[in-house]
Amino acid sequence: MNTLGRVLRLTTFGESHGLMVGGILEGVPAGLVLDMDLIQVEVDRRKSMHVFTTPRQEPDRIELVSGVFEGKSTGAPIALLVHNHNIKSKDYDNLRESFRPGHADFTTFSKYGLRDHRGGGRSSARESVIRVGAGAIAKLLLQELGLEVVGGVFSIGGIEAKAIDFDFAKQSVIFSLSPEVEAQQKQAILEAKQKGDSLGGVVLVQARAHANLLGLGQPLYDKLDARIAGVMMGLNGVKGVFIGDPHVSSMQGSHYNDPISPQGFKSNHSGGILGGLGNGSDLVVWVHFKPTSSIAHQQESINTQGQAVHLELKGRHDPCIAIRGSVVCESLLALILADFLLLNLGSQLNTLKGFYRKA
Amino acid sequence: MNTLGRVLRLTTFGESHGLMVGGILEGVPAGLVLDMDLIQVEVDRRKSMHVFTTPRQEPDRIELVSGVFEGKSTGAPIALLVHNHNIKSKDYDNLRESFRPGHADFTTFSKYGLRDHRGGGRSSARESVIRVGAGAIAKLLLQELGLEVVGGVFSIGGIEAKAIDFDFAKQSVIFSLSPEVEAQQKQAILEAKQKGDSLGGVVLVQARAHANLLGLGQPLYDKLDARIAGVMMGLNGVKGVFIGDPHVSSMQGSHYNDPISPQGFKSNHSGGILGGLGNGSDLVVWVHFKPTSSIAHQQESINTQGQAVHLELKGRHDPCIAIRGSVVCESLLALILADFLLLNLGSQLNTLKGFYRKA
Amino acid sequence: MNTLGRVLRLTTFGESHGLMVGGILEGVPAGLVLDMDLIQVEVDRRKSMHVFTTPRQEPDRIELVSGVFEGKSTGAPIALLVHNHNIKSKDYDNLRESFRPGHADFTTFSKYGLRDHRGGGRSSARESVIRVGAGAIAKLLLQELGLEVVGGVFSIGGIEAKAIDFDFAKQSVIFSLSPEVEAQQKQAILEAKQKGDSLGGVVLVQARAHANLLGLGQPLYDKLDARIAGVMMGLNGVKGVFIGDPHVSSMQGSHYNDPISPQGFKSNHSGGILGGLGNGSDLVVWVHFKPTSSIAHQQESINTQGQAVHLELKGRHDPCIAIRGSVVCESLLALILADFLLLNLGSQLNTLKGFYRKA
Amino acid sequence: MNTLGRVLRLTTFGESHGLMVGGILEGVPAGLVLDMDLIQVEVDRRKSMHVFTTPRQEPDRIELVSGVFEGKSTGAPIALLVHNHNIKSKDYDNLRESFRPGHADFTTFSKYGLRDHRGGGRSSARESVIRVGAGAIAKLLLQELGLEVVGGVFSIGGIEAKAIDFDFAKQSVIFSLSPEVEAQQKQAILEAKQKGDSLGGVVLVQARAHANLLGLGQPLYDKLDARIAGVMMGLNGVKGVFIGDPHVSSMQGSHYNDPISPQGFKSNHSGGILGGLGNGSDLVVWVHFKPTSSIAHQQESINTQGQAVHLELKGRHDPCIAIRGSVVCESLLALILADFLLLNLGSQLNTLKGFYRKA
Repeated sequence: MNTLGRVLRLTTFGESHGLMVGGILEGVPAGLVLDMDLIQVEVDRRKSMHVFTTPRQEPDRIELVSGVFEGKSTGAPIALLVHNHNIKSKDYDNLRESFRPGHADFTTFSKYGLRDHRGGGRSSARESVIRVGAGAIAKLLLQELGLEVVGGVFSIGGIEAKAIDFDFAKQSVIFSLSPEVEAQQKQAILEAKQKGDSLGGVVLVQARAHANLLGLGQPLYDKLDARIAGVMMGLNGVKGVFIGDPHVSSMQGSHYNDPISPQGFKSNHSGGILGGLGNGSDLVVWVHFKPTSSIAHQQESINTQGQAVHLELKGRHDPCIAIRGSVVCESLLALILADFLLLNLGSQLNTLKGFYRKA
Repeated sequence: MNTLGRVLRLTTFGESHGLMVGGILEGVPAGLVLDMDLIQVEVDRRKSMHVFTTPRQEPDRIELVSGVFEGKSTGAPIALLVHNHNIKSKDYDNLRESFRPGHADFTTFSKYGLRDHRGGGRSSARESVIRVGAGAIAKLLLQELGLEVVGGVFSIGGIEAKAIDFDFAKQSVIFSLSPEVEAQQKQAILEAKQKGDSLGGVVLVQARAHANLLGLGQPLYDKLDARIAGVMMGLNGVKGVFIGDPHVSSMQGSHYNDPISPQGFKSNHSGGILGGLGNGSDLVVWVHFKPTSSIAHQQESINTQGQAVHLELKGRHDPCIAIRGSVVCESLLALILADFLLLNLGSQLNTLKGFYRKA
Repeated sequence: MNTLGRVLRLTTFGESHGLMVGGILEGVPAGLVLDMDLIQVEVDRRKSMHVFTTPRQEPDRIELVSGVFEGKSTGAPIALLVHNHNIKSKDYDNLRESFRPGHADFTTFSKYGLRDHRGGGRSSARESVIRVGAGAIAKLLLQELGLEVVGGVFSIGGIEAKAIDFDFAKQSVIFSLSPEVEAQQKQAILEAKQKGDSLGGVVLVQARAHANLLGLGQPLYDKLDARIAGVMMGLNGVKGVFIGDPHVSSMQGSHYNDPISPQGFKSNHSGGILGGLGNGSDLVVWVHFKPTSSIAHQQESINTQGQAVHLELKGRHDPCIAIRGSVVCESLLALILADFLLLNLGSQLNTLKGFYRKA
Repeated sequence: MNTLGRVLRLTTFGESHGLMVGGILEGVPAGLVLDMDLIQVEVDRRKSMHVFTTPRQEPDRIELVSGVFEGKSTGAPIALLVHNHNIKSKDYDNLRESFRPGHADFTTFSKYGLRDHRGGGRSSARESVIRVGAGAIAKLLLQELGLEVVGGVFSIGGIEAKAIDFDFAKQSVIFSLSPEVEAQQKQAILEAKQKGDSLGGVVLVQARAHANLLGLGQPLYDKLDARIAGVMMGLNGVKGVFIGDPHVSSMQGSHYNDPISPQGFKSNHSGGILGGLGNGSDLVVWVHFKPTSSIAHQQESINTQGQAVHLELKGRHDPCIAIRGSVVCESLLALILADFLLLNLGSQLNTLKGFYRKA
């Protein structure tokens, strides 16, 4: 229901304008050093900090209130809490009875017959701060094995990266993957903002080639790519997910197939997954975000009585959710990989030889 | 593990060249008339029947061996069996020790230390015959509520449909959505086949606008779109999934947002899903298939000892898996919708008012 | 992992001596009035309040920090928090390196290689305060349908109830089911306490006969009785669970079978369950508790180095955990019933007729 | 729904008088030699073979139709099939409209509105042949680690074993644990049979003390004892489950607690489980069976119209289901242990040290 993962499981709660958002992360092996500074740094990356994102300023102080003893995980569930502070619920008063186009307002009300209308309630992207906190713990776990997840923004409003530079993205305020087009992308965001409009974008996340990616995932019904697609599509604003070469559907098998050599795969059209299992190459994931639904334009909608209304949104919004979304995508990929690693390092997917060794 | 769905659950077994493939479908409400002719027709649609697909000819006779009493479902699990007949395992003898590029061979062997190499073993698309059989039962269930799933092939090797015509697709041997380009698409397939090559393609599946789609799905972690993306990506050969307008990432919010009127949504860029819940509009799903991995070209690979080999595949293969894949995509969408309907018609997602009414 | 239930799902976190214990309750239908006073009353029933239970005094103030809007459930996950206050971790210092007999200390350390030794850590019965808080919400839900759960202590240290009086249990400080033996049971507890010893006991919980119990549960693998047995046995200190007549194993079918009349069942040896499904009669569950593991006697044990030690426990403990356990058993039964009701009121277990009605 | 286990998962289908019963066993590690003779021997133990059980004679030939390649498991799901042959559905014609007391007939009809009345349909104990087949595979897996499950009948109709002798049980036709009382137990069965009556019984199953039992299970919500209780209670006819000393509820802590010494536990009142985790001692499980519901006496009941009827059952039935039930209990314990072993040998429950070692 509100849970991600099978072995490393995250279950979350909380609304945009409630007291706090939080989650329970289960399945972290005992003995992991939980460096709170590193976890906070990761949470801070997702935070709004500049003109290119939302003006809502939250301290986003993350706390771990269980499952930790003397700085190490104990194997018990880890509860993560982030208190909400900067709440301007009044901004949302005019939305009590009306549905914002592009948002979950109408469908939520249709389903439940009532809703917490303040800031999107449960459906707000505010909840993703917990995904990032949990993702930071997943990254610590991956780090123990030398696995690294990287990501950034590939395109904004159709302005695409030229070369892909993950190191550049780390220091770009819009996480742009491309020094060549970053300025253009910034410009596009500011223009959209000025017009009260918003822009779509594409995020690229990868896990670097690694021996532990080989065989990761389950055949047929819990494939690595299926899990990635499901989880990414579940993130607010995502409308499309691709694995590997995005031109796949117009290609021929003779060009698409990656030849195998004793030194490894000679190309990576597959994006690192064959038959739903990692093949050890870079894991390549493209995530397409829609433009932020909250725009300052006057929009046609209806109210809870089904009457036509014209809405003008106040609130505080990101002009392009792909920017902060890229940090969440990284976190999600880290959570998925750590989950599968824990599952696959278990003997159930391995050989009897592995079964002996572990016993 | 080998299971699809939560309430309407399908668990499958079987390999390409084993005695049979089969599955267990749980959660079908008691009292559904299981018309075996209709189910068989659906299974036959997936079957190879012409030059555009694989020459492997299987009778694909589907049997329901439990959960049915006097022609109706009893609420007990329904077992579906399809025996394998036309098995030419010898064709695969040269693959015992070698890994086909683009296939699950290498990753499966890496994971399990051994594999059933005949025809792809468990990872063969042969298993999808059971998904189609179960999908046919799901369609019968949807039909009880007037819900309809349609689909077809949008593009083959980059040749895209002009207008979308689901009725045309029903009678096109390649399930083409477009009378204007069907001939071109066929031509492309035959050329690829002649060259021993294969082509990628894009499938479009939809559920027609319907009141029961409104509110379908779960917020945040079991969203309708997330489930669709996960399930479609889990199908053999799928590398990308889109919901709604595929140009989303280069659009502006002012164009993308669908205005709401008292008569319903005025456009459908969202593809019928807002906040992970169905909004009652057409549900629009794009599925990108890679070109068939099995091609007649000589390819570079390695054997189980890690030595370089050159492979030439015999076997019998589809030049474009998107064609038969489109039937499976329809089945999967039917299974997902029926599953969520059963889940959502339950009171857990509804109002207390609903809870009373059902009690 | 840390989750109870399938539709009404409770996932908990927290340790005996951590900052707080808490949980996430998912699946509560929107619109339920969450009367905080009633919920607190239920939590208080579980609390230690007298000489017959533990001297650890916790205010046990329960907070709902999400999923509630203007006093009603919204359908979003409800987070429950209870802060820990009265923590005397020093009492446990001598246990850092040693394992208390009867406790989870040795097995936890063996599994995880480290443990939070203070007050039992994650394995402490402290966590059950959250089960009771969630159970109170489940009871509110059951109440909407007129379903009632009752319970009490049947026997303590072998002193068994004569007649069963659930109303008496409500006002007995030891929740005794029997006015005739309550004094004797109290006496036994005080004597055991004086000797630094502890006593086992048997709890009886029931759901009153109700039309909505008919058909509750799932055949074969998710039976109502199977779920009850699993959940009750999962509670700290429980070693046995019976449904219906506890003399069943020495009876004859001709006496055990409950005859059916047009007015209903003529006896209730089955305890209200046939074939894993509720039959509408009283649901009768017996839960056997072991004597509290923490006793003041000197006991033989080992330390983390595997060396023999003699332990004398300080800490604060219940002489008979069955007493407070009876409140938790009621909560668990309420949670199980509400979960199955939500699942079963859904159409997946019902007839096609039901499917139509709900659509 | 119809599934047992989490990693080693069994999902079954089939009715008493259908074409076949079957199941899918997932999670068997690749490379296990599947000795069909040993598996058949185990299935045969459950079969009726003498005057003390049912006269229905089924060949019960078990087939594995997937997941096996050249005699070894491949890691793919293993389908088990057993065809039904000796079907006398006519015996049940008079039950089409009436409900047998003690059976699932009434509750099934109430739930689903229709039922396969022949021989109990889905609720028949016939399905347990698949549990035994799967249990045999689980036993093969346990055997690889030197783990052994034993069991037998402790009491029949109140006649209890004196000494416990698992080796004697292996060759007793009624699986009696006690040479001293076997004759008496047989006599009681024959007398009950002659009178058209039936008897309850108690089964004892154990896993022998073993290092791999230490730490087995999950704290709090997926405890080893909770799982055992849930699974055993889910078996047809089971009404009570105890772990360890059955007199626990009338004992004192000073007698009940098992002292720990450097050489291990000095007693085993706990039945091998502390805090839900195995402690390495013998795992001791008591299972209480009701008397067979099918008796030859005339019984009061109602028909589908709610009218009073008098029923006399024909059919073929065991006078004491505990006898054949004991074989199924062994199988279930083997399945539970193998499942937890696969789960726990995975790193998720272990230390970071374990995580490294496995990576």
